[in-house]
Amino acid sequence: MKLYTYFRSSAAYRVRIALNLKGLAWNALPVHLVRSGGEQHLPEYRSVNPAGLVPALDDEGAVITQSLAIIEYLDERHPEPALLPGDALQRARIRELALTIACDIHPINNLRVLQYLTREFGVDEEKKNAWYRHWVETGLETVEALLAAHRGQGRFCFGDTPTLADVCLVPQLYNARRFDCSVSHLERIHHVVEACEALEAFRRAAPESQPDAV
Amino acid sequence: MKLYTYFRSSAAYRVRIALNLKGLAWNALPVHLVRSGGEQHLPEYRSVNPAGLVPALDDEGAVITQSLAIIEYLDERHPEPALLPGDALQRARIRELALTIACDIHPINNLRVLQYLTREFGVDEEKKNAWYRHWVETGLETVEALLAAHRGQGRFCFGDTPTLADVCLVPQLYNARRFDCSVSHLERIHHVVEACEALEAFRRAAPESQPDAV
Repeated sequence: MKLYTYFRSSAAYRVRIALNLKGLAWNALPVHLVRSGGEQHLPEYRSVNPAGLVPALDDEGAVITQSLAIIEYLDERHPEPALLPGDALQRARIRELALTIACDIHPINNLRVLQYLTREFGVDEEKKNAWYRHWVETGLETVEALLAAHRGQGRFCFGDTPTLADVCLVPQLYNARRFDCSVSHLERIHHVVEACEALEAFRRAAPESQPDAV
Repeated sequence: MKLYTYFRSSAAYRVRIALNLKGLAWNALPVHLVRSGGEQHLPEYRSVNPAGLVPALDDEGAVITQSLAIIEYLDERHPEPALLPGDALQRARIRELALTIACDIHPINNLRVLQYLTREFGVDEEKKNAWYRHWVETGLETVEALLAAHRGQGRFCFGDTPTLADVCLVPQLYNARRFDCSVSHLERIHHVVEACEALEAFRRAAPESQPDAV
């Protein structure tokens, strides 16, 4: 399998974790989101992913975009270890947390959105960072509340094995730290992320471990 | 089942369509997102959904948030008619299109985001509408390209029955029309939406058909 990826993209980071947890062999096809005005806008890449975003997975010629669609696909094609274990309600809990990150935090802070704020509204660096932190802090407060309500006793978000929820949480916390967000009081999140970061599948997926890291 | 909903929320609209397609009985619990500063911020509602967003589904006391998590849950608990039919790749195509809307268009134009633009950046009405249209037009161009690449011959996004992709597309096009976005050239989208709007399950879910419509 081949993954169009960028080391700092947290959506690509999710898929890298999932591929590693499944023990699947994959090659990175780096797409530099900043260099030369953004390689994701080049026609070659637009023909892979018309949205001009990473990641995109190439599984023997079938190209799939959208990190959560990719991960659900991987989980259906390679069921073990399950990233969505349990009954319908347990799976809903996992997806609810994953989507709280993937819909309500990440897209609002995506590079193209930040670029729009600067370009069209003349938002300065300080205000842009306040925007970034606002959505991360608001969203991770919700994640902490969801964990408080539904987590149970496991080491990870839901149980004693990592799921799609953990796969989404770790990259989001990585970004929260990088942009100095105020999240140190979110204890459940920190416990979960610590458990994840002890696993090689998560460590090998981290931005600094990627071939395109600069 | 009970659904916390707001007539104009396109995320709630998705769930209303899914409930109707499944033929499930449900009651609306309206949460007015504008009146009194937004009923979604009241402590009573925060105890239902800590994110302070609609929709939320109450299935005999189990409350699930995030529209796509709710719909996947409904599809697992009530498999017929299937909203994610087919093999893993077909299901990936459906989720890819749904997530292109649910992650890459809708959250950036959510009410709380538009309110932030006005409150913190002093963005005026005209520029706010340009922002709104930019993300809808960019995102629906991607949807059209995905349909061009993968749609096949069916009446709906993928095949001859409505799926999660159609469930997400119809509310997004509703918003596109409401805000005068430039989308009339997106032929495949219009063909699909026309097929959907011929179905009672979609019509009964529309904003103007809701008890809280004003």
